[in-house]
Amino acid sequence: MRPQDIIKQKRDGKALSDGEIAEFIRGVWTGVWEDYQITALVMAMFVNGLTLREQNTITREMLESGKVMDFSDIDAPKADKHSTGGVGDKTSLVIAPALAACGVAVPMISGRGLGHTGGTLDKLEAIPGYNVRLSFAEIKRAMKHCGFALAGQTDEIAPADRKLYALRDATATVPYIPLIVASIMSKKLAEGLDALVLDVKTGKGAFISELSESKRLASALCATGKAFGVDTQALVTDMTEPLGLYVGNALETYECLLILRNETPREALRTRELSVELASNVLVQCGIERTPAKARERILEVIADGSALERFRQNIELQGGDPRICEKPEKLIKTRLAETRILADASGFIKDVDSLVVGDCVSAVGGGRVKASDSVDHAVGFKCIAKIGDRVKKGDTVGILLTRTAKAALPVSEKLKGAYKISPEEPKPIRLVRARIK
Amino acid sequence: MRPQDIIKQKRDGKALSDGEIAEFIRGVWTGVWEDYQITALVMAMFVNGLTLREQNTITREMLESGKVMDFSDIDAPKADKHSTGGVGDKTSLVIAPALAACGVAVPMISGRGLGHTGGTLDKLEAIPGYNVRLSFAEIKRAMKHCGFALAGQTDEIAPADRKLYALRDATATVPYIPLIVASIMSKKLAEGLDALVLDVKTGKGAFISELSESKRLASALCATGKAFGVDTQALVTDMTEPLGLYVGNALETYECLLILRNETPREALRTRELSVELASNVLVQCGIERTPAKARERILEVIADGSALERFRQNIELQGGDPRICEKPEKLIKTRLAETRILADASGFIKDVDSLVVGDCVSAVGGGRVKASDSVDHAVGFKCIAKIGDRVKKGDTVGILLTRTAKAALPVSEKLKGAYKISPEEPKPIRLVRARIK
Repeated sequence: MRPQDIIKQKRDGKALSDGEIAEFIRGVWTGVWEDYQITALVMAMFVNGLTLREQNTITREMLESGKVMDFSDIDAPKADKHSTGGVGDKTSLVIAPALAACGVAVPMISGRGLGHTGGTLDKLEAIPGYNVRLSFAEIKRAMKHCGFALAGQTDEIAPADRKLYALRDATATVPYIPLIVASIMSKKLAEGLDALVLDVKTGKGAFISELSESKRLASALCATGKAFGVDTQALVTDMTEPLGLYVGNALETYECLLILRNETPREALRTRELSVELASNVLVQCGIERTPAKARERILEVIADGSALERFRQNIELQGGDPRICEKPEKLIKTRLAETRILADASGFIKDVDSLVVGDCVSAVGGGRVKASDSVDHAVGFKCIAKIGDRVKKGDTVGILLTRTAKAALPVSEKLKGAYKISPEEPKPIRLVRARIK
Repeated sequence: MRPQDIIKQKRDGKALSDGEIAEFIRGVWTGVWEDYQITALVMAMFVNGLTLREQNTITREMLESGKVMDFSDIDAPKADKHSTGGVGDKTSLVIAPALAACGVAVPMISGRGLGHTGGTLDKLEAIPGYNVRLSFAEIKRAMKHCGFALAGQTDEIAPADRKLYALRDATATVPYIPLIVASIMSKKLAEGLDALVLDVKTGKGAFISELSESKRLASALCATGKAFGVDTQALVTDMTEPLGLYVGNALETYECLLILRNETPREALRTRELSVELASNVLVQCGIERTPAKARERILEVIADGSALERFRQNIELQGGDPRICEKPEKLIKTRLAETRILADASGFIKDVDSLVVGDCVSAVGGGRVKASDSVDHAVGFKCIAKIGDRVKKGDTVGILLTRTAKAALPVSEKLKGAYKISPEEPKPIRLVRARIK
């Protein structure tokens, strides 16, 4: 079939057959389809819609465009957590070692930050020497030795998705749920998992801000995961204000080490809470604990007794990093930086901290990427001192921007100030977990 | 604005502003927009629709991507006829000289055949030496000397349309009325016309077969023509069976010469009738005649008195061709060809002759193009002996396929036989002009 004959079907609102979708996705990664034919079909999909069967077939074909990991010689249950991306969202660095300490094998393939959202790989690379470019064999080796691996996507995993995503990004066709599901799940299913928990963000700093839409995405992800035999569950979690104390790569890794050392500062409690919620969900999914309460207790236990930290130390060593940061986390934040204090412009309660603004500002000072090809300054970032619900006085420091020079802070400091909304009334607390989808 | 921001608007069903459309069309011909962004937006336009204002703005921007002819130093009214394309549709070769003989200046820019439809340029190139590659200056010179020019599109005319059309062709986005209108009218408006008559085909051999859709296209074309100050009218005409006696380039030119010599064979009467209808419409549009009846009389007169033929003779001479074909039209068909007779498989009345099948078969034996890059054999073609409504006996010759070798006819002769439907009852005659749109 010619590409235009397949495009015509979707143009006219018809569902594509499995064979037609297979031709399309193969056409994407083999180059048989021209880029301009790919984007025409994707736009037709976006506007005219895809059924669950089509969503699953696209996922399968993208998955099969690459290799699937084989962990059949690892006895432990294989599980992973995936987040749709947020600001200050650093739970992977707590969850992976905590799950490993509970006997789960975690082959965690992560991404890099873009726009206002951060990426796990960038946070890990703030650790001197840490290598995220692992082969399948190296991932397996790390899982066998310390229970988990933290690695970047390789060319072997779902190459069709990489090409398709780049074209979608250039043609305003990213935010469509069935294509988001196919993109996420084709990569996650390549990990050969038994269980997967998804952290679907909702609120201003999430790429889907409406709760109802976030729930729809969560349900769609779970439906496809299950269709492939993987126990997939989702937590829809709040992304109104930045998560925890820090936004910025080394700063966030530092925050995670404090949590793993059981030295969680007050402002980072929500980071720990979300990590515990997600990790404990996996323990129940894998049958390691029977009830959510017991599972939570178990995760808190492996944090409190240092066994999660010990797993992280082993992992850092295995992946080429300097394990001494586990003993001295402050080594991560020793770079001398200019501090720009953001002051409360009124007295009252913090009603809102716009995570989208904070994320964008951290990117703008070099802590993230404005475009995918940008390099990242691991040291810089933002310290979120006042959290939603906190009482402040006019002139109090609500946050500190950390930049290479004081001058670098100038273009964004006013914007950051504007991110804070202060109200005379105490706001209602925002629940962290807004919905659970099974 | 980034391309993706403009694409997003149309993706979400919003009308684009004139500025956004200008950025898009300029992006097309300057190469600022990537092909894959162009096709994504075009698909969004196709599925979500375009308003008349958007249609007109696309037309204007495509028109302004090239040059517009300036005939202000020619006193005669400037007019043209454009057909949406059919099988055996050869009226241009009668209309242009006939209008010229009536004092209309005709700068007729034509196209080449593709698929089952023929193209005027290919028919003209069947005349030994005839040159259709004229500059603007040469077109004007021909108009001044003989009243008309027959030429191909140059790079100077609406370059944005050429690129856009090629991308639409590869992405199943050709058959959408506002984009068809913009494509046709951006080229026709470059001719600097006072009046334009459109021959919008309907029926099996037309690219829009439904009468209601053909009428919609005709109305949309007229609306845009008028918006640009050109008196634009349309005739929706029947394309059920091939028009006239011949399908094939030299054969069709031969048929037109017979008409211009006032030696019209019975089977070519409909070719003459349609030419007269369209040309006389132009005479009324230009104010040269007051009533349609008078205008028809005038066209028949310039055919009968040889003045239209004389204009064609002058034109052939001016455009480098051999004018002796006007005296000896049979020079055009002197190539020795194999004749394959298509026989009636029953006795009765010819109920249908499938023009789509006839057009495709002529293309298949080399008389047309399957793909745009194919070359054309001007000699081969098909002679339509039995027309709809004719009474035939089983075994009568209903048509003759003319090919280079008898073997070349084998793959299509059965298909051609199948194009003829014979019925015991006399069918109702099909009106030639199905609708008139002003």
